[in-house]
Order: sequence, then structure tokens, then C-alpha cells
Amino acid sequence: MSSSLSVVLGANRYGKAETRVVRITRHGDAHRVKDLNVSTALSGDMTEVHLSGDNSAVLPTDTQKNTVYAFAKRHGVEAIEDFALLLARHFAGAHRAVRHARVAIEEHDWERIGSGGYSFVRSGRGTRTCVVHVDESGEWVVSGLRNLVVMNTTGSEFRGFARDEYTTLAETGDRVLATEVAASWRHAEPPADWDKSHETACQALLTAFAGTYSRSLQQTLYAMGTRVLVDCPEICEVRLSLPNKHHFAVDLSPFGLDNEGEIFLAAERPYGLIEGTVLREDAPDPGPAWE
Amino acid sequence: MSSSLSVVLGANRYGKAETRVVRITRHGDAHRVKDLNVSTALSGDMTEVHLSGDNSAVLPTDTQKNTVYAFAKRHGVEAIEDFALLLARHFAGAHRAVRHARVAIEEHDWERIGSGGYSFVRSGRGTRTCVVHVDESGEWVVSGLRNLVVMNTTGSEFRGFARDEYTTLAETGDRVLATEVAASWRHAEPPADWDKSHETACQALLTAFAGTYSRSLQQTLYAMGTRVLVDCPEICEVRLSLPNKHHFAVDLSPFGLDNEGEIFLAAERPYGLIEGTVLREDAPDPGPAWE
Amino acid sequence: MSSSLSVVLGANRYGKAETRVVRITRHGDAHRVKDLNVSTALSGDMTEVHLSGDNSAVLPTDTQKNTVYAFAKRHGVEAIEDFALLLARHFAGAHRAVRHARVAIEEHDWERIGSGGYSFVRSGRGTRTCVVHVDESGEWVVSGLRNLVVMNTTGSEFRGFARDEYTTLAETGDRVLATEVAASWRHAEPPADWDKSHETACQALLTAFAGTYSRSLQQTLYAMGTRVLVDCPEICEVRLSLPNKHHFAVDLSPFGLDNEGEIFLAAERPYGLIEGTVLREDAPDPGPAWE
Amino acid sequence: MSSSLSVVLGANRYGKAETRVVRITRHGDAHRVKDLNVSTALSGDMTEVHLSGDNSAVLPTDTQKNTVYAFAKRHGVEAIEDFALLLARHFAGAHRAVRHARVAIEEHDWERIGSGGYSFVRSGRGTRTCVVHVDESGEWVVSGLRNLVVMNTTGSEFRGFARDEYTTLAETGDRVLATEVAASWRHAEPPADWDKSHETACQALLTAFAGTYSRSLQQTLYAMGTRVLVDCPEICEVRLSLPNKHHFAVDLSPFGLDNEGEIFLAAERPYGLIEGTVLREDAPDPGPAWE
Repeated sequence: MSSSLSVVLGANRYGKAETRVVRITRHGDAHRVKDLNVSTALSGDMTEVHLSGDNSAVLPTDTQKNTVYAFAKRHGVEAIEDFALLLARHFAGAHRAVRHARVAIEEHDWERIGSGGYSFVRSGRGTRTCVVHVDESGEWVVSGLRNLVVMNTTGSEFRGFARDEYTTLAETGDRVLATEVAASWRHAEPPADWDKSHETACQALLTAFAGTYSRSLQQTLYAMGTRVLVDCPEICEVRLSLPNKHHFAVDLSPFGLDNEGEIFLAAERPYGLIEGTVLREDAPDPGPAWE
Repeated sequence: MSSSLSVVLGANRYGKAETRVVRITRHGDAHRVKDLNVSTALSGDMTEVHLSGDNSAVLPTDTQKNTVYAFAKRHGVEAIEDFALLLARHFAGAHRAVRHARVAIEEHDWERIGSGGYSFVRSGRGTRTCVVHVDESGEWVVSGLRNLVVMNTTGSEFRGFARDEYTTLAETGDRVLATEVAASWRHAEPPADWDKSHETACQALLTAFAGTYSRSLQQTLYAMGTRVLVDCPEICEVRLSLPNKHHFAVDLSPFGLDNEGEIFLAAERPYGLIEGTVLREDAPDPGPAWE
Repeated sequence: MSSSLSVVLGANRYGKAETRVVRITRHGDAHRVKDLNVSTALSGDMTEVHLSGDNSAVLPTDTQKNTVYAFAKRHGVEAIEDFALLLARHFAGAHRAVRHARVAIEEHDWERIGSGGYSFVRSGRGTRTCVVHVDESGEWVVSGLRNLVVMNTTGSEFRGFARDEYTTLAETGDRVLATEVAASWRHAEPPADWDKSHETACQALLTAFAGTYSRSLQQTLYAMGTRVLVDCPEICEVRLSLPNKHHFAVDLSPFGLDNEGEIFLAAERPYGLIEGTVLREDAPDPGPAWE
Repeated sequence: MSSSLSVVLGANRYGKAETRVVRITRHGDAHRVKDLNVSTALSGDMTEVHLSGDNSAVLPTDTQKNTVYAFAKRHGVEAIEDFALLLARHFAGAHRAVRHARVAIEEHDWERIGSGGYSFVRSGRGTRTCVVHVDESGEWVVSGLRNLVVMNTTGSEFRGFARDEYTTLAETGDRVLATEVAASWRHAEPPADWDKSHETACQALLTAFAGTYSRSLQQTLYAMGTRVLVDCPEICEVRLSLPNKHHFAVDLSPFGLDNEGEIFLAAERPYGLIEGTVLREDAPDPGPAWE
């Protein structure tokens, strides 16, 4: 169709996104729930499928879904990073054409209720995530969380910023600082215990958010990332995306009322968006970890 | 335009929906957060505004929004039912043309983190709600919650159901039962403490869900509603909407694996939807409570 | 559990919500797509299932889903009102315990692209809806649409409104009026052609929105409802829910710029919400039509 | 805090996301609407703000928002690519610390209704997008669209794929192929007319989707990308993300019915996800275009 154009196929991958698998294990009366959303993506020698529709290199996405369910049974599910690695190693070697596997997992958390051991309520304190890459040159693991909404009702200012002809913002010495944390962190080496490592990193994020007197959300971001690196020696890089969930003090003076940091309008759009990376100076090359 | 048609104006109301107000109070180092989404709606002698665009009876929705903010400052915010009543009484008497006020509030919950007293994380265990109606003939309060996702991993069966020519479902003696609770309850009289009443009702819902051996989601619904009435004498009617969040056991036999209640597919659509009302036999007439 | 309480079961229904069925018919090269989201709900003698978990009166929601698919094949799908009636009549007589059936359908519209006759793009001009009730005493049909977003960039004012101590809003003689129409209309008798009736009603809504000089959104609402009644003799009642999608003129004076109705901020929350009913004076009793 | 760790700041940027600006121009009776969602992000010498909270290099995100509004007035808004370039050039030179500006815009389309020239309905055929980068070394423009949902009801097969022990999928010679197109394309040089270029690219995507007999969604993807390159000489690279919106034929045999490609279940999760790039062999280095 376009040989004179010299069109080529660039980066590509395909897979099954958002396979929802719930595994329930029963140890006497004490049940456990693992509730995952698994997305797999494979890449490799896929030129012919794109150019001619020759599917001989394509392991169907339906098969990938089946594999997720079968592996959940055959191997069980503990830390999502371990399960993602298991799947990615399998897929990377599953077929001659597949060179690279990417497995992303989200985990929804459930807390026990009742006394029977088999009743649960879904928790809302953020969603745990991981993305794993495996090919013949190595393995890469990024862990993280998202949808963790936090707020400091004081201990935050924003002053001394640059001004130009479009600047109308007043400086403030005491503001509400709220954000919805999306964080991902790369491991230089696998920790002994993924769950413990995740718990430590999450705690570091919360501790730094709550414990940092903030002159800007950028400063808070850097403090959060640094704290993860300090507390988790196995982690070499942290990426954070922090929307500034603005809380504007409402002007109540038309009604003869003052408002000393008491009544706020929680705005949605637009929002500030602060994105940043904190890493060890000697962090190894990321390879495909962030793709 | 249509006098020969004899067109008339029927039920109508107008207001400001989803005013997001956050109130922060500072008692030394221990701050408190109330995070509300307030919707107000007024009705009364509004024929002329509809027919001729004469706005003299219309208190602007912008004014309603301002009133929410000003009242949050002037009167503070404790239980959402009290705040809704305060607003509704004000609006119902605010202008000669307004005969009836409806105020609905959603509350987002925040939990403390850190040691400073001013750091919070947003909780995800459902959203507290209320709807209040006030007019010269009375006051009605409905409280509730939504988005509370619960699961029993056993203790649920579904058997003995009716069958017709379109029935293919197999009976099951042990299934996962999961739902996202949306519940509303009407008060025969105001409780001494709205917060305590809400806490008791929520606990009743969770206790009944976890503690009921379920032959159907309808039976669980009835048990949940009944338990609220038993535990909360001030409540006279409970309405529940329970989507059946189906967890289907995955057929792993093509892979030589059994699956004894271990690996489930969490489906989204379609879903069973069970809606029902449980009330005291002597419950007073609801009036406009559910509108 | 609660006999001393005299707890009773109130209104209830159960069914399968959001069964997504797509029917494709092939007439030579010209294919047709009907893309529906069907929700069914049954009620009747359901006391025992709630009280004791005796499911003998329960036709499973899974069976209801199967019936939707089988009926789409057996009877085809033309106007959604006809398909809903077909299903509702079936369910209302399907089992001795079932007394009443409610069937709600949403239809997504697809437009042709290409020349092959089998390629389509999903249209975004609102979603067509209907809700049908059938029991032994009668049949009720409500048709409608939602998610139809419209805007007048002039021809709208808001003046002469009531003021109180919380009013700060300025009057305006020329504003942007935008809303997302959700409309439902009840039929006094079935039209000869549901599709044609729907088309006429939709056109009436658009014509009235565009053609009415608006002193308030209430006035526009009334004009829209009236126009439907004028143009569609088979329709006896129209209910409209019109969020006021505020477009606020941005104050550009700090930058030495005027803004004569040119640059607007499209706000999301809070929003005015105008709800109203327009009906024929001789409209028959609605029965369960709006439930 | 962590000097012994040798922590460093990596890639970062900050800005105001999702500023909703609507510009209305009035040429006699014929009004025009431009409805944009603008996100700006700046980067440069931002180390101090992260490390010490020194904000002297930070042009507030509030200022960025103001600039969007002021520029919409001062310079007007025609093609979103031009408006994004205007903003990005301004920001890249706005302050000594800012080295790089990224501006992303989404445009919502409105179609005329009525005869007055000032009434519109929001169109739902996808959302136009662009992302622009500007720094002292150059300018990069990526255009695109998303949320364009398309379907072929025949002309699609999936056969000859790889199989392993987890493969249960049957081959099919005639299936429904549906996807929600998200496409972005990079310009080697600016076209004479961004709007015309966008229109041509969109038409190329639709034409290729409808006109390609599909042996796999990968093949369709490649055909779509190639067609854009063929029809738009100014475009050097196309990236596509195509979720496979599965339509599964429903098994009606339990009800004594056949189903020859007529009745389908429209599934949502999981879904196949096909991502790929098609580019000219001589495409210049992308630089930061895709960041």
C-alpha cells in the first residue's frame, strides 16, 4: 500500500487488560481475600501480524486471561509483585515470538468485619499497584499506590513565588494542603518481603506528608520521595504525581462574617499538578521499568 | 402558546446542587475536618417564573450556595442532619414564595494520620448521607450511607428457585456474596444524637450482613433492615438497594485444575439488583420524606 | 427475630440490571445495529423469600438476562419501547408469584461510516431511554433521553430575582445558557410509531431550547415541555431535569483586558438544578409509570 | 536529611491542569464556540523549590491559569495547536528559571442547532487533542483524538493464532470488531492548516478502519496508522491505542435458538489492548514530543 513511503512498524505491544481475579483461601474459619486487576502485555517479533495479518506469533489475549486464572490457582497469590513476576516470566518464555512481557496489577484491599472470619469490607485507603517487566536481559519491578487522598489543615504556606503581569495570587502563610497521591517506586533489588517493603514505603509517604512543614507542594513531594529512599534501602527511585486539591477560603465578608481559615470551597478543576522524581545518585539504569 | 391544550405546571423544584464546603476547626493542636457536599432545592409558588419568566419569586441558586457557606461559619457544622435541618428551616421561611425546602448532604470521612493533629487521610468506607424536608406542616429526616462494599466468602447459597424455559443457572450451596450497600432510613422522631444513631445503624447493617446465613440476597436485605429497626428505636423505615456483585467461579477444568471455591471472576455488568423496604408496622406516613 | 417489633416488608423488587445486548441484522450489505442496555425488575408475592429464604417464587436474575438475549433473537429488536413491552408482558406472566414487571432500556446510537454498509461510529448526541411497567391492571410507557448537552450563547438573561442578605449575584441581560437535558415523557396512549414519536419529541426539545428567549432556565424548561405536548398528541406528561452548566465570564480587568461576553470559565460544581413537570390538564393518573 | 544517601532530584514539572476555557465569538448572528480544556506544565531550574522551598523560580499555577484566559482574549483561539504553541512559547520564555513548557489541550466539539445562529449541541464523535513542547532547542507538536468508538459488524476474522496449554479460544472467520480509538500523531513540520490536517487524519483513520478486511486488530491498527501517513505528508509518526471492545456471540442453544452472528453480549472487562506505532523510516528524532 505504501512501499514508496517507507513506513515502518515502531514500538508495539498487545495483551489483555483488567482481568479481575479474586482468590479466596480458607484456613479453617479464617478466610483470606486477594482481589486483583491484572493487565498483561507482550511484545516481540510481531511485524507480520501487523503487516499481513499472519497471527502465528500471536498468543491470544484470551489465553493470557486464562493463564492469569490458572496461575492464581496453580501457584496461589501472595504479594502482587511475586504474582506479576511469575506471570511475566511465563509469558516472556511462552512462545518463540514473544521477547518481552509487561504485567501490571492493581490490588483492592479488604478488611475483616464480623466474627465469622469470612466477612469483609472494602477499604478505601488507596490502591496498591505494581508493574513488572521481564525479558532475557533482566527483570524490573515498580511498585506503588494511587488514590490515597491526604490533607494537612495547617503547616503549609506559599510565598515568595515569581510574579509576572498575569499574577494575581496573594501570598499565604497558612493554607490547606490536600492531594491525591499517585506514587511509584523502582527497586534496585528485590526486597526480602514485598508486602513489608510496600508497607514501609506507604508509611514513609504518609509520615513525610504529615511531618513536613510545606513551603510548596514541590517541597513536600521531594520530602516524600526522599523519605521512601531513606526508609527502604531496596528502592532506588520514586516518582510522584501530586494534584493540588485546592481548598479556597470562601469570602464571607459580604455577609458580615470573617473567615480565618475555617470555611473552604473544595475545588476540582483546574488543579495544580506537581510531578517529580527523587532517586539515588547511584540508581542503576531504569531500562524498560517505567514503560 | 398552548392555551387550547390546557397545559399545566406539575411538580417542580430548583436549587443549587453539590456545593462542596469544608469546615476546619482548630482546638489547639487537634484540628477537625467536616467535608460536605450540599444540595438544596426549593419549591412553592413558582408558576409565574415558569410561564412568564417573572423571577420575583426566585431566590437565586447562587444565593443558596452563599447561604450554605455563611451558615457553616455562623452556626458551625456538627451532624449533617442538624446542618441540613438548619438550612432547610431557613430556606422554607426565606421568601414568601418558598413553601418547601429539601436539603441533601453527603459527608466524606477523614481519619487522622501523623502526630501533629492536623493531618488526615480520606477514608473509603462508604459515604454518609442525609435528605431533609421542611415545610410548614412538618420536618422529615432520612439518613443513610452509600458505597459501602462488603463481601461474605461463604455462608451464602442460592437454591430452590423457580425455573422456566430460560433458566440455565445451577443451584449452589456455597457462593460468594458481595454487594455495595446503599441504605436510607427514615426517623419517626429525631434521635438525641444523630452521629450516634448513624453509627448504630451502620453497625447494624454490617453485623446483619456478616451474621446472616444467606439463602438469597433478599433474605440478607431483610435481615439488614430488620436489624437497623431493632437496634435503633428512633428509625421507622429502612430502604436498601443491593446490587449483587457477582463473583463467578472460573472453570479451570480445561487446564486440568479443579476450583473448589477458590478462583473467581469479579463481574461488573450485568448485575442482580435487589431493592426492598423494611418498616415498622406502625410507621407514620412518610409524607415527602423519600422525594 | 423481631416479632415484638411488628416489622413488615414494604415495597420491593428485584431483577437483572444493565444487560448489554447488541443485535446485528444483515440485509445484504446494509447491516443494522441495535445496542441496548436492558434492566428488568420483578415484584409480586415475595414475602417468603425475604423472611425465610424460600426461593420458590424467585425467577433468577440470571434467567431474566437469558430471556433478554433469547427474546432479542426470537422477536428481534425494533423500537426499544416495543422490546421493553414484550419483555415486561412476558415477565408479568412468567410465574405465579410475579405480579408486576418493570423494564428499562437505554439505547446507544450508531451512525454509518464508510461505504461497505457494515461500519459504524458511535454517536454522542444523548442516549435514548424508556421505562415500561406491566401488570394485570395495565401498561405504562415512559420514553426519554439523557446526556444531551446544549448551549445558547446569547438570548438568555437572569434579572428581577428575589434578594436576601445572602444574595451577591449581579443581574445579567446576556448570559450563556447551557444544560445537559434529561427528559422523560409519559404516553397517554401508544403512538403508532415509537421511533417517530421519539424523534418528534427530541426535535421539540431542541427547537424549544434554541427558540426560546430565556428569562430563566425554569422558563426554558416549561417551554421545552410544552412544545413536546404540542407536537406529540400521544404524550401527556413531560418531566425535565436541567442542570445549569454555568459559564462564568472571566474577570480579565487585572490584565487590562475587557471581556464582553467572550471568555468564559466552564464550571462544574456546584450547579443550579432545575427540575419540573409539564402535563396536560386531563392527563390520566400516572399509576406506577414513574416508579 | 539524607546527604549520606546522595539523593537527587530527577525529572520534574509542574503546572495547572484542566483549565476549562470557552470562547464565544459573535459575527453578527453567527456565533462560534471554542470549548477547551488546557493543561500547562513548566520545567527548568526547579531544584531549590524542591530542596528548600525557595519559590523564587515558581511562576504559580494560578498565574498559568490566568494566562490561558488572558491569551484566549488577547490572541483569540483558532486551531488548538496554534493556541498551545502560543502559550508554550510564552511560558518557555516567561521566567529565567523556566526552560521548557508543555501545553496539552482537549477540544470539545459543538454543532449548530436551530436557526438563530447561537444554539449548539455537544457532539460526541471523539475529542480532539494536542500536546505541544517548546524549549530553546525546538518545538514539537503532537495532535490526536480519543474516545472515537467504531465498529465493523463483519469483515473481521481471527484465525491461525498461536496456541499453548492455556488456549481455549476458537478460531472465528466472522466477528464483530469494535474499538475506542485513541490516536496521536507527530508532525515532522507544521502543516499549513492544523484544522485541515486534523480533519484529513481523522478521515484517514475512519476510512482505514472501515475499509480494511481485518485478520487481527493489530493489522487494522497498522492500516490505520499507515493511511494517516499516506494522506498527511506532514505527519511522520502515529501512535494508536486500541482496546478490543469484545462482542461475544451469546450461546442461545439452551433455548433451542441458533445465533448466526446476530445476538452479542457487549463485554467491558477484561479487554484486549493493542498498542502500536507506525512511522516513516526517515522520521526525525522525536525529542520530548511524546513526554
